[in-house]
Amino acid sequence: MKNALSALGRRTPTPPISWLMKAALTRPKLISLAAGFTDNPTLPVQISRRLLNRVLASPVTGQPALQYGLTAGHPELRQLTATHLQKLDGGHDRAHRPDHTIITGGSQQFLYMTLEALCNEGDIILVEDPTYFVFLSILQSRGLRACGVRLERDGFDPAHLEARLEELKKRGELSRVKALYLVTYFQNPSGVTTTLARKKAALAILKKYERAAGHPLYLIEDAAYRELRFDHGNDIPTALTLSGAAERVIYAGTYSKPYSPGARLGFGILPEPLYSTVVNIKGNHDFGSAMLLQALLAGALAGGDYDRQLVRVQKRYAGKARIMGEAIAEHFPATVEIWSPGGGLYYWARLPKKFATGQNSAIFKKALNHDVLYVPGELCYAVDPARRRPNHEMRLSFGSASEENIRAGIARLGRVFRDAGV
Amino acid sequence: MKNALSALGRRTPTPPISWLMKAALTRPKLISLAAGFTDNPTLPVQISRRLLNRVLASPVTGQPALQYGLTAGHPELRQLTATHLQKLDGGHDRAHRPDHTIITGGSQQFLYMTLEALCNEGDIILVEDPTYFVFLSILQSRGLRACGVRLERDGFDPAHLEARLEELKKRGELSRVKALYLVTYFQNPSGVTTTLARKKAALAILKKYERAAGHPLYLIEDAAYRELRFDHGNDIPTALTLSGAAERVIYAGTYSKPYSPGARLGFGILPEPLYSTVVNIKGNHDFGSAMLLQALLAGALAGGDYDRQLVRVQKRYAGKARIMGEAIAEHFPATVEIWSPGGGLYYWARLPKKFATGQNSAIFKKALNHDVLYVPGELCYAVDPARRRPNHEMRLSFGSASEENIRAGIARLGRVFRDAGV
Repeated sequence: MKNALSALGRRTPTPPISWLMKAALTRPKLISLAAGFTDNPTLPVQISRRLLNRVLASPVTGQPALQYGLTAGHPELRQLTATHLQKLDGGHDRAHRPDHTIITGGSQQFLYMTLEALCNEGDIILVEDPTYFVFLSILQSRGLRACGVRLERDGFDPAHLEARLEELKKRGELSRVKALYLVTYFQNPSGVTTTLARKKAALAILKKYERAAGHPLYLIEDAAYRELRFDHGNDIPTALTLSGAAERVIYAGTYSKPYSPGARLGFGILPEPLYSTVVNIKGNHDFGSAMLLQALLAGALAGGDYDRQLVRVQKRYAGKARIMGEAIAEHFPATVEIWSPGGGLYYWARLPKKFATGQNSAIFKKALNHDVLYVPGELCYAVDPARRRPNHEMRLSFGSASEENIRAGIARLGRVFRDAGV
Repeated sequence: MKNALSALGRRTPTPPISWLMKAALTRPKLISLAAGFTDNPTLPVQISRRLLNRVLASPVTGQPALQYGLTAGHPELRQLTATHLQKLDGGHDRAHRPDHTIITGGSQQFLYMTLEALCNEGDIILVEDPTYFVFLSILQSRGLRACGVRLERDGFDPAHLEARLEELKKRGELSRVKALYLVTYFQNPSGVTTTLARKKAALAILKKYERAAGHPLYLIEDAAYRELRFDHGNDIPTALTLSGAAERVIYAGTYSKPYSPGARLGFGILPEPLYSTVVNIKGNHDFGSAMLLQALLAGALAGGDYDRQLVRVQKRYAGKARIMGEAIAEHFPATVEIWSPGGGLYYWARLPKKFATGQNSAIFKKALNHDVLYVPGELCYAVDPARRRPNHEMRLSFGSASEENIRAGIARLGRVFRDAGV
């Protein structure tokens, strides 16, 4: 007798992230430079305590926070979210609409539901090469195909995007393409930030192929790391500020990374008919995210605690990134190419091509023997018949490790590299 | 140019529940006997405040509550959940295993992911006739077919279940059947509780057809309302206590209804390979539910607050159910058949067959004109070519309405019935 799993079930094996997260949580001696966890000491414990105390101090505010709410989310939080985005985008309000905003259980849930609304099995999503590996897991699970677009130091390569679309057109597969997915700030895994010019180019190129596709081609902008920048200077505007954005840009944001993953909330903005459809799908998933968490975030945003917390978090990550950078300079051979980020949680290290870094490689195993863990770069590349998956890179996170462990972990990796002759 | 929605997107229109919930939230004068919201005054505002204060009083407990956790859920909460179920089931531990328990964003999310793991488009789920209407929405959205099994006062009709399976076998569709879904306690919408004998019959009948189906046939037991019983006497054991349960019973439970929908958490227990698959799917949805809420519930369960809150909630709903019952006896014509529940949130009212109650019926519209809202019974019936959808019933909830509004709402409905000549 066969098992009863669906095709989706069969396509959803234990993802690498689970293994990495579990290893980090259950092996206390291990120094994990793999997990995308946030920094423990800066988590807003006291702020959250004070805000929740206030929400739950009276039945007037306490009862709604413990009750069901609207599927699309807490109206005040949606308004605060749209206003916050407008402020970040220099006052732009082109597509920053609370009535097109949905609050979700993390930006991950938003991405999941957006793909449900948009894609049939066999459809194609264009992604950066490399890209966020959990996004690749979702694509695989849902039977979707990823098509990689070369990533450069200031974002995806527009010429390569066009080449790939041209190629899909020739193969008669353009009707299967639904969107281009970009992680636009301090990208996971590479740390790359996309320039506004490239976002504009993305919209223009997608537009050009729409007629042949027979339907809109969307730009999904995942801005998960946007607020984790190290300087307090100018921020690059989102694609929401561009002409045509209200019809074609899907924006994914999160409060997990800048505020708290344990009070997991994300949000998204979409054009119709996607917005209504994603809200309806959310109704089937869970009727809307927990109101208690939404009340907490609304309080943090409205009272300025969110902004003050963000300054602390930015300062902290900037410091940890500097420490990791210094340790890398001290311990890594010069043959390792380093992409240093201006924000976010990750360094991207590129070994000479002959040194594999994957889960079965000598380097990965030696690193584990020395109790240090990283994310193998190959996990971040789509399975794409058009090229071999590069396997000589690694993502190094300074998010959750202590300063001492960052130094020790990088030193251990440096030793592994030297032993291997890198 | 077509829109780019997926087939799933097109199959997911605004569900009736959203409309009903929104009407209840945004029209303050309306007396809603429709929404399945819980009772506001008994929500555990003070308890939650005290427990969250304790969790966030120190970094030792506060930081993990604001950090990522394991995808399957907070280990202590999973243990407490399994232990709690064992206690409810009289010490049984046959299938009440923490290592097969997953914590989710409400039991709704659990049901959604279970269907993802189990069903391909076109597959069939057997359901009670009538059944939980949001479950029907999920089936429709995912392209699944519902096959109704007659519901009697003590649960589904086993003879009818067998007849339907026999019929599917004859049509060569048995391989598309994956599970039987039962809401076993104070069912939504009918208030019916399934006897243990019928649960046993369900497992036996499913087993009988497995060979012809070619794969396991599961019993999905949705026990969402289990703890909302009015007496404090004996509880009927779950299907988890039955022989064969560890291999064939999928159990869905929730902390939303008994504790707080705003701190939305549910849980499920599944056999392998479904358990691992659902955990992996959860990894793609959201990496695991918010740790802050899980820490809150673990605290409530461990310290006895959950049990004390439950006694309050049970007493409160018992009182409100009595008030609704008295108002019904006073105001409804004798021609309306009433199914009175022993727990949960709902009365089921059956009008003589010629009186339609659907959203376009005279009775529904007159009720709305009198500012009272109910759930039309027809929404709770699967679209099934084997019979017409019964359309002369209604679900009346005493969950969120005040005692005064329950009396007034039932009186208004009584007037609508009399005016219509019921």
